[in-house]
Amino acid sequence: MGKGSKITIELSEDGGQPVFINLASSIIRDIERGRLKPGDALPGTRSLAKSLKLNRNTVDAAYQELTLQGWLVAKPSRGTFVADDLSESKPSYGKRHIRAPADSGASEATTRPLLHLSDGLPDPRIMPGVELARAFRRALISPSFLSGSGYGDPRGSIALRTSLADYLMQERGLTAAPENVLVTRGSQMALFLAAGAVLEPGQAIAVEEPGYPLAWSAFRAAGARVIGVPVGAQGLDVEHLARLAEREPALKAVYLTPHHQYPTTVTLGAGRRLRLLQIARQHGLAILEDDYDHECRFEGRPVLPLAARADPELSVVYVGSLSKLLAPAVRIGYAVAKPALLERMADHREAIDRQGDLPLEQALANLIDDGELRRHARKARRIYKARRDFLAVELDQQLGEAVSFDIPAGGLAIWLRLGDDLSAETWAGKAAQAGLAVAPGTRFVLDTAIAPEAFRVGYASLDDTDLRRAVTLLRQTRP
Amino acid sequence: MGKGSKITIELSEDGGQPVFINLASSIIRDIERGRLKPGDALPGTRSLAKSLKLNRNTVDAAYQELTLQGWLVAKPSRGTFVADDLSESKPSYGKRHIRAPADSGASEATTRPLLHLSDGLPDPRIMPGVELARAFRRALISPSFLSGSGYGDPRGSIALRTSLADYLMQERGLTAAPENVLVTRGSQMALFLAAGAVLEPGQAIAVEEPGYPLAWSAFRAAGARVIGVPVGAQGLDVEHLARLAEREPALKAVYLTPHHQYPTTVTLGAGRRLRLLQIARQHGLAILEDDYDHECRFEGRPVLPLAARADPELSVVYVGSLSKLLAPAVRIGYAVAKPALLERMADHREAIDRQGDLPLEQALANLIDDGELRRHARKARRIYKARRDFLAVELDQQLGEAVSFDIPAGGLAIWLRLGDDLSAETWAGKAAQAGLAVAPGTRFVLDTAIAPEAFRVGYASLDDTDLRRAVTLLRQTRP
Repeated sequence: MGKGSKITIELSEDGGQPVFINLASSIIRDIERGRLKPGDALPGTRSLAKSLKLNRNTVDAAYQELTLQGWLVAKPSRGTFVADDLSESKPSYGKRHIRAPADSGASEATTRPLLHLSDGLPDPRIMPGVELARAFRRALISPSFLSGSGYGDPRGSIALRTSLADYLMQERGLTAAPENVLVTRGSQMALFLAAGAVLEPGQAIAVEEPGYPLAWSAFRAAGARVIGVPVGAQGLDVEHLARLAEREPALKAVYLTPHHQYPTTVTLGAGRRLRLLQIARQHGLAILEDDYDHECRFEGRPVLPLAARADPELSVVYVGSLSKLLAPAVRIGYAVAKPALLERMADHREAIDRQGDLPLEQALANLIDDGELRRHARKARRIYKARRDFLAVELDQQLGEAVSFDIPAGGLAIWLRLGDDLSAETWAGKAAQAGLAVAPGTRFVLDTAIAPEAFRVGYASLDDTDLRRAVTLLRQTRP
Repeated sequence: MGKGSKITIELSEDGGQPVFINLASSIIRDIERGRLKPGDALPGTRSLAKSLKLNRNTVDAAYQELTLQGWLVAKPSRGTFVADDLSESKPSYGKRHIRAPADSGASEATTRPLLHLSDGLPDPRIMPGVELARAFRRALISPSFLSGSGYGDPRGSIALRTSLADYLMQERGLTAAPENVLVTRGSQMALFLAAGAVLEPGQAIAVEEPGYPLAWSAFRAAGARVIGVPVGAQGLDVEHLARLAEREPALKAVYLTPHHQYPTTVTLGAGRRLRLLQIARQHGLAILEDDYDHECRFEGRPVLPLAARADPELSVVYVGSLSKLLAPAVRIGYAVAKPALLERMADHREAIDRQGDLPLEQALANLIDDGELRRHARKARRIYKARRDFLAVELDQQLGEAVSFDIPAGGLAIWLRLGDDLSAETWAGKAAQAGLAVAPGTRFVLDTAIAPEAFRVGYASLDDTDLRRAVTLLRQTRP
C-alpha cells in the first residue's frame, strides 16, 4: 500500500472552531470508526492540503496536535502514521486519551481521559490566549525589537519591570520601582537566585513543613541546607522558628508562603506575621516570601504581603508568578528586592541564563498595561470561586464522614484531611489505578514519617463535570 | 494645561505598515517639529483611540514603542508624557536615538543612531516573525495546550525535541533521538547545566583563550575553575591542552567552539579534531562542544560536529542555539548528550527553572517541521555572506594598511587584527566617543596582559549603509 494512497479525510461542517481542530477531530473519528487503522500511513501534508483546499500549515497543525495526543506518530523522513499501540498512554502534556483494554479491538475503542487532581494549577482554557498571542506578535514586529542591537538586560525588559512595579504597587501595596524588579522564567528560577543571593553554600534555610518541595530543590541547588518548621492552623509555627534560630547559627533565611500556605492553604495570622518580622530582625534572617497565587482571593481583600510591611533593614525577597494566573506553561515569574540584593541575583542570572524572552516579556507588559491581566484576574476569581464551592459541596456529600476540610479563603486547592484510619498513600494508589491522579501528604514533607494523612486537591483547572467525576472516583476507591 | 488638552495627533497616509508604527512615526514627527514639547502630556489612550477611530490596543502599542525608544515616559497612574530630556540616551533594547548637542534646541534636533558593531548577532529584521507569531498563537489555542494537565517535561516539549533530533540528524549528521535532547532557554543555560553535570565543584575546565567569557561565567556559576588554553590559526592548541591535562589532575572537561571559534572565527583543523578526541579519551575529559552558529557556513559544507564522530565512551555535550539563527531575544537553546548525562542536566534544570516555555517550544517545532527554519537559514546565509563580503571590501579599502584579517568561512563576524603599534582598547574608546561600539580583544581573555590587539566585528545585524558608516567611524577614530 502506497503512502497515504487509500485514505480520504473529509472535513466536517463543524463551524466556529479553528480549521486545524476541525480536521484533527475528523481524523480521530476515522480512527475510531476503523477507517484508519494502527500503522496506516497518513497522506503527506502537502497533498492533503491540496485536496482539501487548505493551507499546508493547517494540516501540519492538525497532525502535530494529534501526535501530541498520541493518535499519530511522526517518523522522520518517512511520514506520519496512525499510532501502532493506541491503548498505551503516550507522553503528552494534554489529557491523555487512553483506550479500554485491548479485547475491544483497536477499531472500536472508546476513549476515556485520565483525570488529574492537580496540586493547584490554573485553567489555561480561560486564559486570554488570543490577546497574549496578539501582543506577542506585535512585540516581534515592533521596530524596537527588529532594530534591536542584541541582548537585553538580565533583569528583564524595562517595559515589563515598569508595568509589574506599577501593578504590584496598586494591587499589593508593594512600593517597588523597576530597579527593584527582576523578571525570571517562572518563580522557580527566582527562588534559586534568591537563595543564592542571601545564603553562602552550607548555610541553612528554614521552610514550612508540609511545604513546597520544588522550592527545597531550588535551595539545595543553590548549596543551602533545608530545615523544616511545622505548620499549624495559623500557618508557620514562628516560635518553633525562633527556637531553631537560637540553636542553629547557620540558619540565615526563612522561606514561606504566608498568603495561602502551600499545601495547607491557611493564611499566616496577623500576630504571627509581626512575630516573624521580629525574629528575622533579631537573628538576621533573610525572608523569602512566595506569594504564588496572590490574585486568587475570594473572601475579603487579599492580605498585604510581608514585603509591604518589612522595615528597610530586613532582607526580603518577594517572589511572584504570572504562570499561576495564566497557565503553567507561560513562564514568567519575578522577584522584588532591594537593588543591591537584586543586582546579585541579576549577575547570577546572567551567568546561568543570560536574559529572558523579550517578546514574551513585552507581550505581558502589554497585557498588564491595557488592563487585560486585571480583567482576567477578575474572571479567574469568579470561576475558581464557583469551582471551589462546587468541589466543597461534592466532597461533603460524597465523602462527608471520611474527610474534613476548611473552605480556603483563596488559592487554587482544598487541603483534605482524611479520617484517622485512612492512609493517603494507599488511597492515592488505588485512585491512580482507577485513572485519577491525586497528591497525598507524603509529597509535601521532608520526613515522610510525619506526613499528614491528607490530599491537596486542586480545583481550578477542572470544570464541574470533571470535579464531580474526580470526587466520585475518590469515593469509589476509598480503602 | 489639562492632560492632553491641546494635542491633536494625525495619522499620515502611509500605507503598508502596521497602524501602530504609523501612529508612532506621526508622534515622533510632532515632537521633532516642536508641536509636542518635552514634558507635554499625551492624550489618554482611550480618547486618542476614539478620536482616531482606532483600537485602543493600537494606541497602547504605539505609546509603548515610543516609551521603549525613549521618546515618551509613562508615569504610573498619571499618564504618558513627552520625555523631559530627549538628549539623554535612554535604556532601550533598540537603536538609541540620541540628539545632537543641546544648543540646537529640543524642537529641531536631528536624531542620529548609535551604531553597534556587535560580537556577531543575527539580524532580527530578516526573521520569520509573522510565521513564528502565527505558530505561537496556534500553540496557545491548541486543545492539547488548553486541556493541559499542568507542567511539562524539564527536558522540553516532546514535539520540539523530536523536531530538533530530526533536524540535527539531517543537517549536522548527529545521531540523536528525542531522549538525547534537552531544550533550554538559549545556550547559556545549556552550558551551565552541562558543566554541572560533568564536573564536581572545584574541578577544572579548559577553555579557549581568547574565548567566550559568558561561558566562563556559566562554568564558574557551576562551581568550576576555568583554565585558558591558547588558540592559533588552526584553532585550540591541543598539545597545550595535552600538557595541561598531564599536570592538572583536577582537569575534567574542555569547552570549545570548533566550527567557528569564538572570537577568532577559525575552524578547528581536521588533525586537531582527531587529536582532541584522543586526548579526551586518554585523560577522561568531557567535551563541551558549542556549535553556536552552525547554519552560517558560506564556503563548502559545514564541518561535522565533534559530537558526530566521538566514540560512545566519551562524554560529549553538544550545545546549540536557535537564538543565533533567529534573534537573540528568542530564547531557545539545546544540549545533546547521552541519556544518563542528560538526565542529570534535566534534574538540575528542574530545580533551577522547572521547565521551558511550552507554547514557544511548540511554535519552533512547527517552524522546523514545515521547513520554515531551513528556508530562513538559506536566506540568512545569502544575506550574511553578502554582508561579510561588503564589510571585507570596506575594511580593505578604508583601513587597508592598519589592519589585517582572514575572510571567515562562516559565522557572523570578522576577526580584525590591528597593526603592531595600535591599541585596540584605545581605538575602541575613541570610537565609542564618536558613537560606535566595538569589542576589543581585552573582552575575550582571562588575562588582559595577553589580550590580542584585535576587534571582533559582527556584520550580520547591519545593512550595507550601516556597515560602511561603522568602518568610516573606525577610520576617523584611528589613534
